[in-house]
Amino acid sequence: MTVQTDPRLARLAVDTIRFLAADAVEKAQSGHPGTPMGTADLAWVLWSRFLRYDPADPLWPDRDRFVLSAGHACMLLYGMLHLAGYRLSLEDLEAFRQWGSRTPGHPERGHTEGVEATTGPLGQGVGNAVGMALGAKMLAARVGEELVRQRVFCLASDGDLMEGVSSEASSIAGHLRLGNLVLYYDDNRITIDGSTSITFDEDVAARYAAYGWHVQHIDGHDHEAIARATEGALAETSRPSLIVCRTHIAHGAPTKQDTAESHGAPLGAEEVAAAKRASGWDPAASFVVPEEVRVFFRERAREGAAERGRWEERLQGKKAEWEALHAPLPADVLERLLAAAPAKDDATRSHGAAVLQKAAELVPSLVGGAADLASSTKTVVKGSPRVEPTSYGGRNLAFGIREHGMGAVCNGLAYHGTFRPFASTFLQFSDYMRPSMRLAALARIPVLYLFTHDSVFLGEDGPTHQPIEHAWALRLIPGMDVYRPADGYETAAAYGLALRRTEGPSSILLTRQKVPAIARAGGDLGDVARGAYRVAGEGSPDALVAATGSELHLAVAAREALAREGVNLHVVSVLCLELFHRQDADYRARLFPDGVPVATIEAGRTEPWRVLAGPKGLTIGIDTFGASAPAEVLAEKFGLTAPQVTARLREWLR
Amino acid sequence: MTVQTDPRLARLAVDTIRFLAADAVEKAQSGHPGTPMGTADLAWVLWSRFLRYDPADPLWPDRDRFVLSAGHACMLLYGMLHLAGYRLSLEDLEAFRQWGSRTPGHPERGHTEGVEATTGPLGQGVGNAVGMALGAKMLAARVGEELVRQRVFCLASDGDLMEGVSSEASSIAGHLRLGNLVLYYDDNRITIDGSTSITFDEDVAARYAAYGWHVQHIDGHDHEAIARATEGALAETSRPSLIVCRTHIAHGAPTKQDTAESHGAPLGAEEVAAAKRASGWDPAASFVVPEEVRVFFRERAREGAAERGRWEERLQGKKAEWEALHAPLPADVLERLLAAAPAKDDATRSHGAAVLQKAAELVPSLVGGAADLASSTKTVVKGSPRVEPTSYGGRNLAFGIREHGMGAVCNGLAYHGTFRPFASTFLQFSDYMRPSMRLAALARIPVLYLFTHDSVFLGEDGPTHQPIEHAWALRLIPGMDVYRPADGYETAAAYGLALRRTEGPSSILLTRQKVPAIARAGGDLGDVARGAYRVAGEGSPDALVAATGSELHLAVAAREALAREGVNLHVVSVLCLELFHRQDADYRARLFPDGVPVATIEAGRTEPWRVLAGPKGLTIGIDTFGASAPAEVLAEKFGLTAPQVTARLREWLR
Repeated sequence: MTVQTDPRLARLAVDTIRFLAADAVEKAQSGHPGTPMGTADLAWVLWSRFLRYDPADPLWPDRDRFVLSAGHACMLLYGMLHLAGYRLSLEDLEAFRQWGSRTPGHPERGHTEGVEATTGPLGQGVGNAVGMALGAKMLAARVGEELVRQRVFCLASDGDLMEGVSSEASSIAGHLRLGNLVLYYDDNRITIDGSTSITFDEDVAARYAAYGWHVQHIDGHDHEAIARATEGALAETSRPSLIVCRTHIAHGAPTKQDTAESHGAPLGAEEVAAAKRASGWDPAASFVVPEEVRVFFRERAREGAAERGRWEERLQGKKAEWEALHAPLPADVLERLLAAAPAKDDATRSHGAAVLQKAAELVPSLVGGAADLASSTKTVVKGSPRVEPTSYGGRNLAFGIREHGMGAVCNGLAYHGTFRPFASTFLQFSDYMRPSMRLAALARIPVLYLFTHDSVFLGEDGPTHQPIEHAWALRLIPGMDVYRPADGYETAAAYGLALRRTEGPSSILLTRQKVPAIARAGGDLGDVARGAYRVAGEGSPDALVAATGSELHLAVAAREALAREGVNLHVVSVLCLELFHRQDADYRARLFPDGVPVATIEAGRTEPWRVLAGPKGLTIGIDTFGASAPAEVLAEKFGLTAPQVTARLREWLR
Repeated sequence: MTVQTDPRLARLAVDTIRFLAADAVEKAQSGHPGTPMGTADLAWVLWSRFLRYDPADPLWPDRDRFVLSAGHACMLLYGMLHLAGYRLSLEDLEAFRQWGSRTPGHPERGHTEGVEATTGPLGQGVGNAVGMALGAKMLAARVGEELVRQRVFCLASDGDLMEGVSSEASSIAGHLRLGNLVLYYDDNRITIDGSTSITFDEDVAARYAAYGWHVQHIDGHDHEAIARATEGALAETSRPSLIVCRTHIAHGAPTKQDTAESHGAPLGAEEVAAAKRASGWDPAASFVVPEEVRVFFRERAREGAAERGRWEERLQGKKAEWEALHAPLPADVLERLLAAAPAKDDATRSHGAAVLQKAAELVPSLVGGAADLASSTKTVVKGSPRVEPTSYGGRNLAFGIREHGMGAVCNGLAYHGTFRPFASTFLQFSDYMRPSMRLAALARIPVLYLFTHDSVFLGEDGPTHQPIEHAWALRLIPGMDVYRPADGYETAAAYGLALRRTEGPSSILLTRQKVPAIARAGGDLGDVARGAYRVAGEGSPDALVAATGSELHLAVAAREALAREGVNLHVVSVLCLELFHRQDADYRARLFPDGVPVATIEAGRTEPWRVLAGPKGLTIGIDTFGASAPAEVLAEKFGLTAPQVTARLREWLR
């Protein structure tokens, strides 16, 4: 599909891309004109000669992916999507960075057609691209190469490559030999604070070679060089490719080219006019797209549609394999997981292992792995091999001790569209991948996070490894559902509910230590799917005790002890507070009736539990760092044994 | 100070180190024996021939630093500290991983004498070591080389070098040419999930060469090779050094050497006995230290004391320079900053810039920088140059777009002991360095975080850059003080209070947008140092409105509007909730009198504000992601204009 284009047209198209960006930033009086102007040549060559896409079907599964890791340069992407014929009008470009527009200040997947990844926080897009390339390889291993011709192209800035998340993801890509990935490094040597030389003089090319990448150097404004290097990168199918493109930020801006000033502020009307004049454009006109450029992209769109048509034909012969993998989730996934829920006393991480096997059976697209802790988090899909370099048929991924890379790669896998990825590590290390988790929530993609060792009760590893604030820190991320199951039944429920949710990510927090199976006599079992439900208690309660995870059995024990003293407690399990908040007001009021005192128990920060407990409620938990000691000693020291909890409730109820 | 040692003694000492580790893990029935056994040779050569230390003065400023980035191998460090004569007895070693012991499951600075850094979360120690090396260079530039002979040695595992934070910090170290840093890479090729080859086959040595490091390869069990490489590394003073040490995990364990099994679990009594037998040790005895080994380390301690004595003598000639830098903070730092507080309407980031200059004047040890956002966060110390490769006299650090590395390096600077470091970026990107921030809190070191662009009101950059959950996510970290000042006065207060605090880190959240200076008529101005205080209101209130930062002026405006309707509101500024929580109960009850309804306003997550507002209170804020638009449009859309807030309060009060 590589076509040579008329140099005059190329010049016109590149100018169009540059001036659309400059005009939009100027009109918004806000944005980043420098990088779109500096990378317009790259984008033009890529979109005109290489990228396989069909604007009529933006989610055509076998399209090539283009990820703009340098999300601040979004006007480059919006300009290209407009020219390419996606649903993005000139009016949309004119509404750049305005309320409700399709053209926000950084690209948002799901918000703007054709945007493959939500980017802006630097380094993430590189990891997303690695995940997409991995998704393509894993898909090809399942349905055959003839249905998977997609390649992944990513454009990264200096900042992207300074971030550790891109280092981790690039090391993963090198290890897995993702030869379908091409990373253009926009080496413009300018960042916000000035020349990159003030802090970034490492040899990026040598570093990528050390990761096992194929590396080339080019002049990023030379179209034939860009095309040749891209062809070279595509021809190298056993390694990912880095193309170091020496570019000039704000290329063609008469006084601001190669300055930090052009990075994140409008160029100014005069500078834009002067740039247009220098290119023979009318300085008074803005948001102009010459007809020749439109004609060219219309033809590209026709080619894309034809290519998609050929793919649809190839698909006919493979419908069964394809659909097995892409079928919607069984509607009764929750019920089936609950039916097979583990019933014995055990660590919920072990229950998680059992439920994962069943879930993997029900959901063929479920794949994932851990950050070198699979044996501790027990997140291996049994009977399936590990994904290995050049062998991508397995369902288990070894991410290495690279949590942040894992997070970004899993987002990329979810963006890719075929797989339901899970990522696993200790809850403590959720902090390492928090930026990627937030982006999953913002992009509303269903990544599943499996965090074990979810409290001080992991024991001897001590405070560096013991989560205190983490459960609540995750609950605070808008759109993140956080489950903390108490036993095998709730672990199955958490998996089922999380899998059923396709519009955002979920975290499941599991214990290292053994916990008892909860007897649910007298509770409202059918309500587990409502996020919080009554586990035990009859009649009119004197108080409610709401607990989560490994502390639920303490509430049950305290209830039993105090019942002997004539106190009627109801026990509520808060499996997932976010899900509970989404229930109707009637259910919420029924579970927490007005005027009934509430105590909460969770082995972590107590302050936010005031949302249930109110000012007079009792919040039992831990507000300091943990300590290194055996779990049973910690329980005693932190006041989290059944007798201690009972005593505190008794005193509080007086 | 390099001394050749008798090979028989060397063998005995290495066995002692190995068996102390194996015995302690065995006794605790928990821990990581493999790495201490695999790196005992390295530790012995380093501590016997190179490390300059005096156990009688563990914080001797010119000591060499040893950072165990592979914190799980803490029994190596505890064993060495015991042998070297630090306050760590055999009984302490026997209490490994027990409640209240000096030997927790990962090393904790401040908890155990001689431990330089709190490590365990991987990659952090490498960044800490870079910070210490930088601190030494910066100190030498100020007081002269003759007072600063300290070198920094760091031991890192595969996991440490897979983590992006170490990539970022290592790139910084290469750029800054920190020739006083030696990093031993324990290349044992084993991680928890098995061989490193399953995910980590990059060329680490080539990667470090690309960062500008000096690189050597050795057999990590060959003492002369270790010594020669260390000498080579120390002789190379213009570049940091990596020594790739090929080692065998659980070296000398007859059946478990080179297995993942030996990484994180006791070897078993039989295996330990067999290892001892193979070395000619009594398999029945544990926690044994041969007298020859004790004698040797006593002599080392005497040498260290003598070296410290010579340093003290050299110090005499430089007392003034030394003390100028190491003097305690002026006792009236808060008052002096408040006296110079900016009074006009402006963005609090701009107020921060002004206050920073005054603070830098009062606190000569205050140094820091931003993650390529100094021009946006306005955190440049004026009149002082940037720290540059080979020129370390400046106070401004350019960390590049490496937030996590910045966090770990600033921890290292604080550990080093001379400087009060600050780290700056947008509040959104606090997520990128959260693991380092948590460790600062755990280690109780006074790193200052300056976060600007602290709400949706940063405007057009949109939801990828707009903090929603971040203020609360930081407040949840135990020991982290979070300030969100409303104007110039409170910005000065925040700096003063944060600087005054030496026992932990503080975060100051500042606006991008202009905010009005608050008129504080009728409030309790003297109470700003109590974290929360009454800004406006007289007599008996109908309700309280508690607000922070850029929303405080909304509370003031609403109070004035409703006063005209006969409603008496008091306005409370919650500058720092943690500080307020530490006030006496009387003050807290006085500020929030029982029975008076409370509303809260903060442009972020509302749920945790129930801690002040209770179940019936009104919590005004934002619980969804933000949006890309000009700030004034966002204010309207998110209900955060003065008329909207007034209307909601009016309705609530009905």
